[in-house]
Amino acid sequence: MIATWINGKPADRISCGDRGLAYGDGLFETIAVVGGRPQLWDWHIERLLEGCRRLRLPPPDTGLLWEESTRLCQELDGSSGVLKLTYTRGTGGRGYAPPGNTTPTRILALSAWPQWPASRWEEGVALFLCQTRLAEQPQLAGLKHLNRLEQVLARAEWDDPQWAEGLVRDPSGGPVEGVSSNLFAVVHGRLITPPLDRCGVAGVMRRNIMQLADKLGVPAEVRALSLPVLRTVDEVFMSNSLAGIWPVRALSDRTTWTAPGPVTRRLQSALRRQGVVPGPAQGEK
Amino acid sequence: MIATWINGKPADRISCGDRGLAYGDGLFETIAVVGGRPQLWDWHIERLLEGCRRLRLPPPDTGLLWEESTRLCQELDGSSGVLKLTYTRGTGGRGYAPPGNTTPTRILALSAWPQWPASRWEEGVALFLCQTRLAEQPQLAGLKHLNRLEQVLARAEWDDPQWAEGLVRDPSGGPVEGVSSNLFAVVHGRLITPPLDRCGVAGVMRRNIMQLADKLGVPAEVRALSLPVLRTVDEVFMSNSLAGIWPVRALSDRTTWTAPGPVTRRLQSALRRQGVVPGPAQGEK
Repeated sequence: MIATWINGKPADRISCGDRGLAYGDGLFETIAVVGGRPQLWDWHIERLLEGCRRLRLPPPDTGLLWEESTRLCQELDGSSGVLKLTYTRGTGGRGYAPPGNTTPTRILALSAWPQWPASRWEEGVALFLCQTRLAEQPQLAGLKHLNRLEQVLARAEWDDPQWAEGLVRDPSGGPVEGVSSNLFAVVHGRLITPPLDRCGVAGVMRRNIMQLADKLGVPAEVRALSLPVLRTVDEVFMSNSLAGIWPVRALSDRTTWTAPGPVTRRLQSALRRQGVVPGPAQGEK
Repeated sequence: MIATWINGKPADRISCGDRGLAYGDGLFETIAVVGGRPQLWDWHIERLLEGCRRLRLPPPDTGLLWEESTRLCQELDGSSGVLKLTYTRGTGGRGYAPPGNTTPTRILALSAWPQWPASRWEEGVALFLCQTRLAEQPQLAGLKHLNRLEQVLARAEWDDPQWAEGLVRDPSGGPVEGVSSNLFAVVHGRLITPPLDRCGVAGVMRRNIMQLADKLGVPAEVRALSLPVLRTVDEVFMSNSLAGIWPVRALSDRTTWTAPGPVTRRLQSALRRQGVVPGPAQGEK
């Protein structure tokens, strides 16, 4: 960790009475920082505000958040980095009832850019097929809230580094997303990503890729895919705000693809031009 | 809050990198303290250890926990109180992967006995019928883990104090439990409590009541109840480690019971004799 601010001041400890700890009563965003600026900021904030609305959290002062975030990002001295923004309901209220006069806690944590091998973008990644299923909770689906035990359980299923990411499914076995990324498939030149209205996290990079596809004239739709169908699609890739686009070359030991496929490659190029993730994240040597 | 210890030392702040905050990656227990001693300790610890097993958390030194807990409880000077034990995976590990060499964080927080009106035991409580449904996640069902947004959402559905507790249901609409208590029904002298293998928290007091029923010769079973059936049962009550047994006199505006009913009353008396909740909690004046 490079630096942490809590409620606008350098600090790294919070009250053990914070509801973020007690109940996971809060939200977070993981944001790529390029050239000193948090990327795709408006969409991160939009998702955060949607989370506040659904959890009935008082919304943050977004101007203040931007001001603090950009000030903190100066610590990177121009390097790329990761800004994690955590926003909880704050302390107070014994029991589950949200206190009336709550003062949320905002935590900004800045860390160095993760070291991933360039092969993840250039040759693709292999997906572990997780057994942990995502429970269906429409009231929380899509949000990046702090209740993430399912992801912890799913990620704990493997430790062999041959698997860069894991695929998680809904209770019926339908593929939903990666443990910390969203899932895309390409079928006959069409881009498909599963719906996230019953479980899963609606990634900001997923939204960005849908928009890039639209600009490139690649037809894109939100549609459920069964696991057997996923195994037959032309291309698969995973996305998140830091990784950008990771082509998938294998799903467990059973299915392989030539990665990156042509549509994935076009989207990777468009994302590189957009500049919202650092160059190396797009596989540049 | 009377006093808080973190990892055995007086303290009230934890690292904002703790996985309990980041992901709700941990467990908790809320324990009644009577006469300076945490009550039903062995069963609280049993549930905590079961949680550690299922979340693959290194288990705590239970002897040390007991020693610290009883030492902290001396602060109550013989009064009744509430000991909240929180146990997280500790700090470390960017991303969901549980770090290999994790050092869990243990938090002991002591607070005063809650002030509830005696009428809750003597005349019963009215239940609000929550619309929030509990998602089905067998891997986490039964545990008292830190992912409690569903309870926060359900509890936020009402603020009129006429409702002392809310009833929450599974995705099919079947009653499961209270927001912070378990549900019991009495039908023709038989005690029934819903199964908790797909959602819900398996309360220590629920277990205790099942054992008390057995000792009293009251037949008891774990069985699902539909909402229409629940409205027709002879008696209903809610249980938790602090409240003991709260008879239910009404469910929303539609169904009422004479509370406490005879079986509920027998169990309340047995619980009073057992002494695991303070006298007033059982409605003594």
